[in-house]
Amino acid sequence: MRAVTFQAPGDVQVQERSEPELEARDDAVVAIEASGICGSDLHIYHGRVQIEPGFTIGHEFVGTVIDAGDAVTRVQPGDRVLGCFHSACGTCFFCLRGAFHKCDEMRVFGHGKLLGGLQGTQAERALVPRANMTLRKVPEGVSDEVALFAGDVMGTGYHAILQADIKPGDNVAVLGLGPVGLCAVQVARATGASPVIAIDSVEQRLDLARSFGATPVHLTEDNPREAVKRLTSGRGVDAAIDAVGHPDALDLAIRVSRKAGTVVAIGVYAEPCQVHMGLVWIKALTLRSGHANVIGHVDRVLGMLAARTLDPTPLVTHHLELEQAADAYALYDRREAMKIVLSP
Amino acid sequence: MRAVTFQAPGDVQVQERSEPELEARDDAVVAIEASGICGSDLHIYHGRVQIEPGFTIGHEFVGTVIDAGDAVTRVQPGDRVLGCFHSACGTCFFCLRGAFHKCDEMRVFGHGKLLGGLQGTQAERALVPRANMTLRKVPEGVSDEVALFAGDVMGTGYHAILQADIKPGDNVAVLGLGPVGLCAVQVARATGASPVIAIDSVEQRLDLARSFGATPVHLTEDNPREAVKRLTSGRGVDAAIDAVGHPDALDLAIRVSRKAGTVVAIGVYAEPCQVHMGLVWIKALTLRSGHANVIGHVDRVLGMLAARTLDPTPLVTHHLELEQAADAYALYDRREAMKIVLSP
Amino acid sequence: MRAVTFQAPGDVQVQERSEPELEARDDAVVAIEASGICGSDLHIYHGRVQIEPGFTIGHEFVGTVIDAGDAVTRVQPGDRVLGCFHSACGTCFFCLRGAFHKCDEMRVFGHGKLLGGLQGTQAERALVPRANMTLRKVPEGVSDEVALFAGDVMGTGYHAILQADIKPGDNVAVLGLGPVGLCAVQVARATGASPVIAIDSVEQRLDLARSFGATPVHLTEDNPREAVKRLTSGRGVDAAIDAVGHPDALDLAIRVSRKAGTVVAIGVYAEPCQVHMGLVWIKALTLRSGHANVIGHVDRVLGMLAARTLDPTPLVTHHLELEQAADAYALYDRREAMKIVLSP
Amino acid sequence: MRAVTFQAPGDVQVQERSEPELEARDDAVVAIEASGICGSDLHIYHGRVQIEPGFTIGHEFVGTVIDAGDAVTRVQPGDRVLGCFHSACGTCFFCLRGAFHKCDEMRVFGHGKLLGGLQGTQAERALVPRANMTLRKVPEGVSDEVALFAGDVMGTGYHAILQADIKPGDNVAVLGLGPVGLCAVQVARATGASPVIAIDSVEQRLDLARSFGATPVHLTEDNPREAVKRLTSGRGVDAAIDAVGHPDALDLAIRVSRKAGTVVAIGVYAEPCQVHMGLVWIKALTLRSGHANVIGHVDRVLGMLAARTLDPTPLVTHHLELEQAADAYALYDRREAMKIVLSP
Repeated sequence: MRAVTFQAPGDVQVQERSEPELEARDDAVVAIEASGICGSDLHIYHGRVQIEPGFTIGHEFVGTVIDAGDAVTRVQPGDRVLGCFHSACGTCFFCLRGAFHKCDEMRVFGHGKLLGGLQGTQAERALVPRANMTLRKVPEGVSDEVALFAGDVMGTGYHAILQADIKPGDNVAVLGLGPVGLCAVQVARATGASPVIAIDSVEQRLDLARSFGATPVHLTEDNPREAVKRLTSGRGVDAAIDAVGHPDALDLAIRVSRKAGTVVAIGVYAEPCQVHMGLVWIKALTLRSGHANVIGHVDRVLGMLAARTLDPTPLVTHHLELEQAADAYALYDRREAMKIVLSP
Repeated sequence: MRAVTFQAPGDVQVQERSEPELEARDDAVVAIEASGICGSDLHIYHGRVQIEPGFTIGHEFVGTVIDAGDAVTRVQPGDRVLGCFHSACGTCFFCLRGAFHKCDEMRVFGHGKLLGGLQGTQAERALVPRANMTLRKVPEGVSDEVALFAGDVMGTGYHAILQADIKPGDNVAVLGLGPVGLCAVQVARATGASPVIAIDSVEQRLDLARSFGATPVHLTEDNPREAVKRLTSGRGVDAAIDAVGHPDALDLAIRVSRKAGTVVAIGVYAEPCQVHMGLVWIKALTLRSGHANVIGHVDRVLGMLAARTLDPTPLVTHHLELEQAADAYALYDRREAMKIVLSP
Repeated sequence: MRAVTFQAPGDVQVQERSEPELEARDDAVVAIEASGICGSDLHIYHGRVQIEPGFTIGHEFVGTVIDAGDAVTRVQPGDRVLGCFHSACGTCFFCLRGAFHKCDEMRVFGHGKLLGGLQGTQAERALVPRANMTLRKVPEGVSDEVALFAGDVMGTGYHAILQADIKPGDNVAVLGLGPVGLCAVQVARATGASPVIAIDSVEQRLDLARSFGATPVHLTEDNPREAVKRLTSGRGVDAAIDAVGHPDALDLAIRVSRKAGTVVAIGVYAEPCQVHMGLVWIKALTLRSGHANVIGHVDRVLGMLAARTLDPTPLVTHHLELEQAADAYALYDRREAMKIVLSP
Repeated sequence: MRAVTFQAPGDVQVQERSEPELEARDDAVVAIEASGICGSDLHIYHGRVQIEPGFTIGHEFVGTVIDAGDAVTRVQPGDRVLGCFHSACGTCFFCLRGAFHKCDEMRVFGHGKLLGGLQGTQAERALVPRANMTLRKVPEGVSDEVALFAGDVMGTGYHAILQADIKPGDNVAVLGLGPVGLCAVQVARATGASPVIAIDSVEQRLDLARSFGATPVHLTEDNPREAVKRLTSGRGVDAAIDAVGHPDALDLAIRVSRKAGTVVAIGVYAEPCQVHMGLVWIKALTLRSGHANVIGHVDRVLGMLAARTLDPTPLVTHHLELEQAADAYALYDRREAMKIVLSP
């Protein structure tokens, strides 16, 4: 079969790979119909996340089950399914506490040996471990490109808002309007947050946020701190989402939060950095971080996608063929695309 | 001034009353611009809730502050305000725990001596105690008839959904589509519940629920238990709201709930009744009851009304003058109205 | 091997049964060293819970793993383990939400076909499905008779207090001082509740409760409602645990609870009964019911047993041999024992 | 009356001050019987927290009400009371959300104009605003020196553990065994945490922690990270409390926490500092900070002190007379005392 493989920084190639086969009783094999390219893939592409040359990449996918072990009960061959970007065991200390994203046996698709050695999903077919945890049937009426979001980007937006620990009618600021930030905006609106203040420096993204019901604020042309004050009776937001993963975004999130508010750092951090703990302390903030617990959220996210309460369609800017992967990555790297969907 | 007074079961009259005057430093006097008639008023009208003859009734109101004690800091004379249906002290055991609806010094407007001897708001003016707790400014762009809902009926719908302890994407059944049930439907939809199954036997109410985004189910022409199963993969709903206050509704709520689900009995109960504790036990249900904690919710409800995430306008079927109160109560008693707004 | 079997109401016999063998990859076989007799066994003994004649009973156990499938990772042959009273799959809708006690594939030891057809643990050996979920290693220094409690009775006491949703320093009433009630008393004290008011009509049980740090109140010789008022500044308790499973206990629990408090009906209910919903409503109570989620709690309960923060030793009144099972059940049925431990 | 006043860094003097008098209807005047010296007082003593020369300092107190305005309902003249270290209004945005420690009208005793201009309690008498919020009756049998802790240091230990969001049986590390850290150790133990790992470099403090039921670990002679691993099956603690307020402590707290755990930074931070956000992110930690919400906790803390579930007596190393304040501060500054109680 054909698969998108990492070769070296800046170099991905579609190559021939052997067909995946069932290994464990709860494995499934899925014929991929659509697989997204995600910001995390770009980290690999840039060599910042190191994986073995030749490894198949990609971790967002929709497809059809073509084989399943006898312990797979939630789906069966013939089912149209979507996948979560990682697997979880369901029985370890962390899974028992519902922290599936910190499962001791977690394996991430397309991230090399370090994260479980699970070949990626930008391919014609993929082996899916722990299929009862990792796969869900696509509800009727939900398109490939929409379903794709449930197991990764929209699941991450949902996670950010859930971690914000707000009640309906509370207000939220979302800093950074890439796909995750825009999904967080949608989830915030769909769950009753008001206003949802969306902050970025790219007009097109601010326009999308506005179309999703947010109040857009330009990072540099407006004064975000003043804008937040004006929109929140001078108090600051109940919760601020840092969907960037940069100390400046975190700092702004801390500054625009109200006393006793919550900051969710959903953007990726890998290093130590300066944090104004004096502000965190005097404001009595809660700061939450980490990637999304998509397995914990996927049923609910799917429900909202099926009800069109959430709709990521406007984020999909490109549909390309699997064979065009090299072009697709280059395009994404030039920031000319929001979400690219690859289909074999 | 003119005021709607209870005289005897079935007999309300508009009479002359003396002007209210400030008594405590945190009192305010409000010139009423609109006051609603509510299901609770009907309990008084029917004599089921006993109050002193001649007592002014009504507990939903919007108006303008015309006088305020020097400890009133949240509003000032000239402010257009809405009121919560009761006051709370802010410092007792229950207020310190956020249970303002169970405040030891709680006083309910228009419910006679037993509930604090606070004259009602279906009048030209009303004395408002604990104004910092009881009053809020009406946000710009929010009409009287909409603001009115924040301190009572929509606050109750919000309470019901909050008590249901669901996450966005969970599903809900609302049993009984009077004003509270319909507000609960709106809040459920606005906070991401999906599907929201709305059950009643009145077509018009089912139509309203549908227009609010719910899936309507006729109580007798459909089979609600089968319908819920069909809509929830056979599991039952994550939460069921009994907005009726009748053992049959509670029983149905228990039956349509999934294992480990929640039943919220927001409808009024006054007596012991049969409850299928065997089902409650085997399903491991949580059952929550009691009237709404509107003071705890009013800021958020107002925010959602201002953002038009919630909009009770379709529930307002009649605008009448204060002097027409007797007709209004008769009309409401004949169930020909959903929400009647009285204006002096 | 030898096993305690149900024959007919009032008739249990020790009979020869074939050795259990691994069936699934995540099964284990445990050589039983101690198995308790529990109130639920008495329901079977009385014929109120119907199971097939000849079925092996018992569901509390400690022993040593003698065989394990290759998917069993948490324990291995030679490990001294304790078991939870039921299994759970770890991947169904309910397990994903942490409601392991409502798992769609739940199987209860020794409760016949209706609850999963899983032979009981009052035997020389037992087949244990889903061993990663069902079994835990016994921490060093914890005796058989103590460890036994983690997977059933103490797990139930823990569940009751967790469901009570109290904070350290809140007060609690426990109604009914059988093993579950007394364990709830211990957990309440060990988690900072104060006072813990323990209500029963048996002096010996009240004495045990007192020795665990509770304030004992005699159900009939004292006036429980007055006693609770006196001990709670007239307010009622923050949470009341009905550890009886009888409408009178539930009614008392409702009456002694404070406004906005919680009633936990951990005692077994099988039928509809009268509940004073008027009180539930006016007090704005939360009522929670159902059997314990022991798989969700077992790690923490074991930790507290190991630290001797909890110590059920005083509840163990009898150690008997497996062959004496008929006598043991008769003894237990005459209410002459609190907890009987059977050893092969 | 006599009062301890700040004059200049390192210089406190007992001087004559005019008697406090009621100013508002909810004020009280308290005759002080005991007032503690706290780490926060040392910040003033060192000039790090700037207050006006001549300002009366001190914020922990027990005494007797000698006068009360007519809106004071919770206490009355003659009542023996303890105070919280700050007041709160009960009606602002933050109080309505239970965040009394972030009240918009909060005033802290003895911290100068910046924090509300409220004279301190190291004096013969003190004016107490918002007495319904700020004061509580001392339960019978609770000594002055014990009650003193409820409104400040033990309330802070309680807050730290509550913020840790743990369940009974979870484990905790407390970093820094000053009075707050040692109180956190007591609260952790009293609420069922196990083990409680107490980390410091002072033997005497480690001994105290051991006597409170903790597992002591020497910061430099032991290897705290290894010790925590060994005591937590290699996973790290469910929650780590930074009771120091130094980036090194915060860093260690982050490192010893398990995945999806909680870090509570209860120690004071005033500046930006380096935080390993990469670890916070990869571990998916929650970080909470800020001073304690003592008004929200004081009833429960008092209950636990009255039940002797908590007992700070061993922390009180010195009782001195008010007139000895200068010596007391010098002693405290030399770190020769854990808690000094001053009495007029």
